[in-house]
Amino acid sequence: MAREALVYLPLGGAGEVGMNMYLYGYGPKGKERFIMIDMGVTFPDMDSSPGVDLIFPDIEWIAERADQLDAIFITHAHEDHIGAIAHLYPRLKAPIYARKFTAHIGRLKMEEHGYDGEEITTVAAMPEQIEAGPFKVGFMPLSHSIPESSALIIDTPAGRIVHSGDFKLDETPVLGEPFDRAAWSKLGPVKALVCDSTNVFSPHAGRSEITVGPAIEKIVAEAEGMVVATTFASNIARVKTLAEAGQAAGRSIVLMGRAMRRMIEAGVETGVIGDFPKVVSPEDAKDVPRGNLMLLATGSQGERRAASAQLSRGKYQGLTLKEGDLFLFSSKTIPGNEVSVGRVVNALSEMGVDVIDDRMADIHVSGHANRPDLEEMHALVKPQILVPMHGEHRMLREHAKLGEAGGIASVIAPNGTMVALQGNRPEVVEFVETGRLYLDGSVQVGALDGIVRDRIRMALNGTVVIGILIDEEDEPLLDAWCELKGLPEIGRSKAPLAEILEEDVGQFLGRADGRTIMNDDKLEEAVRRIVRQASVKEIGKKPEVIVLISRLAA
Amino acid sequence: MAREALVYLPLGGAGEVGMNMYLYGYGPKGKERFIMIDMGVTFPDMDSSPGVDLIFPDIEWIAERADQLDAIFITHAHEDHIGAIAHLYPRLKAPIYARKFTAHIGRLKMEEHGYDGEEITTVAAMPEQIEAGPFKVGFMPLSHSIPESSALIIDTPAGRIVHSGDFKLDETPVLGEPFDRAAWSKLGPVKALVCDSTNVFSPHAGRSEITVGPAIEKIVAEAEGMVVATTFASNIARVKTLAEAGQAAGRSIVLMGRAMRRMIEAGVETGVIGDFPKVVSPEDAKDVPRGNLMLLATGSQGERRAASAQLSRGKYQGLTLKEGDLFLFSSKTIPGNEVSVGRVVNALSEMGVDVIDDRMADIHVSGHANRPDLEEMHALVKPQILVPMHGEHRMLREHAKLGEAGGIASVIAPNGTMVALQGNRPEVVEFVETGRLYLDGSVQVGALDGIVRDRIRMALNGTVVIGILIDEEDEPLLDAWCELKGLPEIGRSKAPLAEILEEDVGQFLGRADGRTIMNDDKLEEAVRRIVRQASVKEIGKKPEVIVLISRLAA
Repeated sequence: MAREALVYLPLGGAGEVGMNMYLYGYGPKGKERFIMIDMGVTFPDMDSSPGVDLIFPDIEWIAERADQLDAIFITHAHEDHIGAIAHLYPRLKAPIYARKFTAHIGRLKMEEHGYDGEEITTVAAMPEQIEAGPFKVGFMPLSHSIPESSALIIDTPAGRIVHSGDFKLDETPVLGEPFDRAAWSKLGPVKALVCDSTNVFSPHAGRSEITVGPAIEKIVAEAEGMVVATTFASNIARVKTLAEAGQAAGRSIVLMGRAMRRMIEAGVETGVIGDFPKVVSPEDAKDVPRGNLMLLATGSQGERRAASAQLSRGKYQGLTLKEGDLFLFSSKTIPGNEVSVGRVVNALSEMGVDVIDDRMADIHVSGHANRPDLEEMHALVKPQILVPMHGEHRMLREHAKLGEAGGIASVIAPNGTMVALQGNRPEVVEFVETGRLYLDGSVQVGALDGIVRDRIRMALNGTVVIGILIDEEDEPLLDAWCELKGLPEIGRSKAPLAEILEEDVGQFLGRADGRTIMNDDKLEEAVRRIVRQASVKEIGKKPEVIVLISRLAA
Repeated sequence: MAREALVYLPLGGAGEVGMNMYLYGYGPKGKERFIMIDMGVTFPDMDSSPGVDLIFPDIEWIAERADQLDAIFITHAHEDHIGAIAHLYPRLKAPIYARKFTAHIGRLKMEEHGYDGEEITTVAAMPEQIEAGPFKVGFMPLSHSIPESSALIIDTPAGRIVHSGDFKLDETPVLGEPFDRAAWSKLGPVKALVCDSTNVFSPHAGRSEITVGPAIEKIVAEAEGMVVATTFASNIARVKTLAEAGQAAGRSIVLMGRAMRRMIEAGVETGVIGDFPKVVSPEDAKDVPRGNLMLLATGSQGERRAASAQLSRGKYQGLTLKEGDLFLFSSKTIPGNEVSVGRVVNALSEMGVDVIDDRMADIHVSGHANRPDLEEMHALVKPQILVPMHGEHRMLREHAKLGEAGGIASVIAPNGTMVALQGNRPEVVEFVETGRLYLDGSVQVGALDGIVRDRIRMALNGTVVIGILIDEEDEPLLDAWCELKGLPEIGRSKAPLAEILEEDVGQFLGRADGRTIMNDDKLEEAVRRIVRQASVKEIGKKPEVIVLISRLAA
């Protein structure tokens, strides 16, 4: 192996959808210079991370080497690529580069957290390139479901890397640059293509953003009551298509939800959006006949606090839905969100509101490259090496198979896998410890710190608190005191569970030997065991037990 | 309205998928005689019912009228139709009727809970009919993804009702009676069709169970390593098809998971299964070359403890998967289970095991009637009234629209809606309070009792326990004592959170007036407020607070 290695190391996004963060390094081992691509978040769920606000990649490895990090590049402004920027920046403090729209969103995030937005430098698309240590990096436009998504062309002393970011091949993307097949075919020679894998299991070529227009226009034109449409607010091309369909049908447009207003403002301010139909405020909308209104609402994934869910539960910003209104999901339901989206749809059904989603009409297209699109990308770029990124393990594996089938040396490299790219074939050289950080309220905690594990246990098992008072002579004083939380009050013997537990603990304290009473750990363990035994008998559950021991000073 | 009313009242299953329970009543108001159809469960989830074991319909309304209940009929042995039988039977004690296979499963459940299995009477298919008060009820065979599923033909003084149960139209169902179009067309005149709605949004006619055989046979024949297939254990036709594909490829069959063995045994004992290929035990399978093995495993929904998930995590009953093995999901993922199924698939991917699911090959068909099948059912039965049942609200609503479009008077009747059927059109006559019961350990608790709400709060917010000791003169004795569970130990000020809270509570106790100290409720409320304020400042969260106040007797 050459003394100077070119390495790829995913810290997040490889082995999952979300939380993208990739490192490239060049140099002799231990003295590499690094660049980072993307700083994404992923979202918590009740099953595995209850109460958590956001999830980041654990950046310990690169934070320890922050002086070797020359720059951070953000491919686009989706939360799973930019969401961690203000949370993790203080530990890295490298200059950040992004295109105009992405930089605008990034600056808002930095400023919200009290950092200087000017840490982010706006970069034009290729041919402009940023020098960062041994790397030269340029933004090569590609379409995606947000403006100005870009691949990164990373020139290194060991050759050119193409890091795709999230992308699709779209020659008519409504907003932004059409896919430039000719330019893409002239990038070579390319050492390695590091490529989005999320849609590798979608067998048909992706459809262009422009194809959703006619179906949406027709549906909106035929509607009689109020029309509400939801999509991701950051999909500004889609929001524009929806708004224009409303305008064409003589409807006033109302933006519902903070993210919807913020994204459209960002689009207008940065100039990516061009014309956008006039909007009226929810306040003014009350004076417009409902057949002349079109609401564009956040919450396509059924998020409880977003505009769509609030509308489905009743009034939102003074507006209510009624029988005969129409609700469009111009979106797809992300796996895991079926139940929350279903809740919104059923609530709408109870109101008599008709719902049309992407399975009923062609009102949505994906922002990611499907299997044939990936094959086309491989063929255009002709890389020596393929590294599938961004996707669950099964997607990385399938994408690597696709690469190998096309004669490209491919490697499956989930988070923490350091791959050397300077040779003719990718070579796994090291496994780095990676993981997840939780933003919990205002504190960052490790996913394995046990905090969330304890919460899950309390949710599954309920909690018993036992208070014990020991006097100066190491004798129990007062009866033990019990509180229940998240447990039935009455069990098998029809007496209050708290009283039974107090009684059992009291009896134990009466017969316990001095060594147990004197030792907090032993006493706690013994009380816990008694409470759990009695609870299993009474209610068939083993609760979490918190023992509070107070001792009067001797 | 006639003095004698014929009413339909869903207690579960109408407005949801799962937890089926329907009442029919006949007679003068207040003195109706009732029959119950199905006693199903639904399954808890971490989002809304953490720690809960099973969910039943709240049967309070009919339990208060248990002496008016003449019989219970079970359409088929899926958990969402039979799962609550042994849990709710003691409150109803009406005779239970089912066909042979269903009765067999029901008896196992009754006996497991210490009841007499003979409370369940086995009934043959039509023309046999059971008299139950003013009702005569017969089992009319229909196909579904379990043996002997049946519609109920319910003859009443006000006319004939057809209660479909879960069904599909299948003339080649592998097991059980082929769909008998001629017999179904001769049921009339039918007053009301009460009909399964789960697949009303599936636009194409359903495929027969027999159509999955060739694809499965081909895949298994071409496989080289070990083959594992998962499906619902109760889908005995499918299990048989899978086993026969294995046998045809010269493979020994191994049943993995308790439900898989139990269902096949039930199928053999009741004679519904006919021939089944020889099986070998997991123990003996270790001596068989892996290319000659086919495992049939429980856990198609990614259930953590089922055989499939255990295999994906490593060894199960002495067998392990390896690179080059093949795993078939001959099933569909139920909405809400995408993440758990994904976890299994990704773990298999990490092992190098190839996965084929129903989106990649035609190895699964649904057990429910799709939209065109429902239309065919309407046309065959020609009911005067259509009552869509079993389905989320949006499905009931869509099915009612379909009925109306076909000229049938239709009604949307979610749980608790009592509908009179004796007239020419359905008429909603009453809303009855319904809800859910949770089986939690060994105790049945109401869904709205607050127990599960408290668990969810502990999971989201973490818990702080504060112990306070008040002496005989109503003065605080000792310092306040604090324990945290599910919360970070260190917050903004870098000091232990527990110490900060103890300090703040101690300061408050020092300055609190006697009236607060003397009153448990006031003291608790004041301490809770202090703890939450300090926590928000330190960690940005408002925890649940449990205050344990002990008082030395005056």
